[in-house]
Amino acid sequence: MKVTIFPLQDFPLINPRDDIEEILITELRKINLIDDDILVIAHTIISKAENKVYNLHEVIPSSFAQQIGELQDKDPRKIEVILQESREIIRMNERVLITATKHGFICANSGVDKSNTPGDTLISLPDDPDLSARRIRKRILTELGKNVAVIISDTFGRPLRVGTVNVAIGVAGIDPVDDLRGRKDLFGYEMQSTFVARADEVAAAAGLVMGQADEGTPVIIVRGVKYNQADAYATNLNRDPQTDVFR
Amino acid sequence: MKVTIFPLQDFPLINPRDDIEEILITELRKINLIDDDILVIAHTIISKAENKVYNLHEVIPSSFAQQIGELQDKDPRKIEVILQESREIIRMNERVLITATKHGFICANSGVDKSNTPGDTLISLPDDPDLSARRIRKRILTELGKNVAVIISDTFGRPLRVGTVNVAIGVAGIDPVDDLRGRKDLFGYEMQSTFVARADEVAAAAGLVMGQADEGTPVIIVRGVKYNQADAYATNLNRDPQTDVFR
Repeated sequence: MKVTIFPLQDFPLINPRDDIEEILITELRKINLIDDDILVIAHTIISKAENKVYNLHEVIPSSFAQQIGELQDKDPRKIEVILQESREIIRMNERVLITATKHGFICANSGVDKSNTPGDTLISLPDDPDLSARRIRKRILTELGKNVAVIISDTFGRPLRVGTVNVAIGVAGIDPVDDLRGRKDLFGYEMQSTFVARADEVAAAAGLVMGQADEGTPVIIVRGVKYNQADAYATNLNRDPQTDVFR
Repeated sequence: MKVTIFPLQDFPLINPRDDIEEILITELRKINLIDDDILVIAHTIISKAENKVYNLHEVIPSSFAQQIGELQDKDPRKIEVILQESREIIRMNERVLITATKHGFICANSGVDKSNTPGDTLISLPDDPDLSARRIRKRILTELGKNVAVIISDTFGRPLRVGTVNVAIGVAGIDPVDDLRGRKDLFGYEMQSTFVARADEVAAAAGLVMGQADEGTPVIIVRGVKYNQADAYATNLNRDPQTDVFR
């Protein structure tokens, strides 16, 4: 078994309202895509194509956003966008603003980011990354005849451990969680770690090639991974708030 | 740029007090190891070789361990081992016992596991996985003349997100955290995600090939990753308890 990870080279810059699916198909025609390949796509290019871009001079901060902006010494308009993209504030102090996004992902600043965007603009996560992934997967199946999985990713910080890793925020054609219950190890014992976050492992692996300082490689192919093709959602990766002891 | 991930095939079963370094060298001679390859090694084989094995019939549970055992309906002797391997209990209820290990890693059951071990035994994490990784790296350099990085890994569950991922608990020859501060993106902005948990990304990537139900592939080669060769420690991946808002 061998896994290979490589980027779509010279991927064009994406602008708001670009037809990202069309561009992807054009670029994918240049490589030898095969069935069961996994495409990992940085959410930034999806967000841009879907025009999830906020112009700061159009944002009017609420008094709550102004209050947080003062506490954290940050632009209250950015705080306003973060709050608009959130469902709930999970942790907040002078340094951090960790929210549950509209989708239920828990991350810093609702995933709102300035990086890789020109001018005084912010980009947020796509409204429905699972749906965006499904559209791309379907278009590839229709136009290229290849049955692939699609993962839309972002880099998240983590509780307890230092540093960011790339994680899945949208999936299509892959069950993000591998259920190993009932499988036995070499000595006939049932496995202890029975749910493996496969889509997050794939996203992290793609992160090794995707880099961050170069928007030139937002699309990564991961080839050779065994995965379940179930029709599932990246939001399945969010823990139940009722039973999460770290919430 | 291309990353490839493949296992050392037919790796022999490891028994307590085996010379794991000698066995590794023998197996590595069978492949074309190159400079800058990263070896990701499941901690279980290191733990076994270092005899970090507890025989349950030799374990005498404290009254505290008995109390937790009753609460969770689990063998109090296993609880006793978990407590002995821990520095601090982080979260506990009827279902979970999440501790900081002696090294400071926060995970379920101090990383103590029954899986992949014959008989009534438990295995724990190595006493000093960074040191174990250094020994292996040095031996490879001496005997094979190859300058590689070594990551010792375990599968950890995560706060907030469902499922386990493979993470680094020992490293040698690789800085586990990639500091991207000061790097600019395409538009000249400084990066937002400035610390990338590179060793965890590599461990997660190896997890795609390592599997769990088969101890036959505990050693994975990850080739083609750009990483910093700094002399650093996996314990650098543990967040400062004082500033971790999820602790």
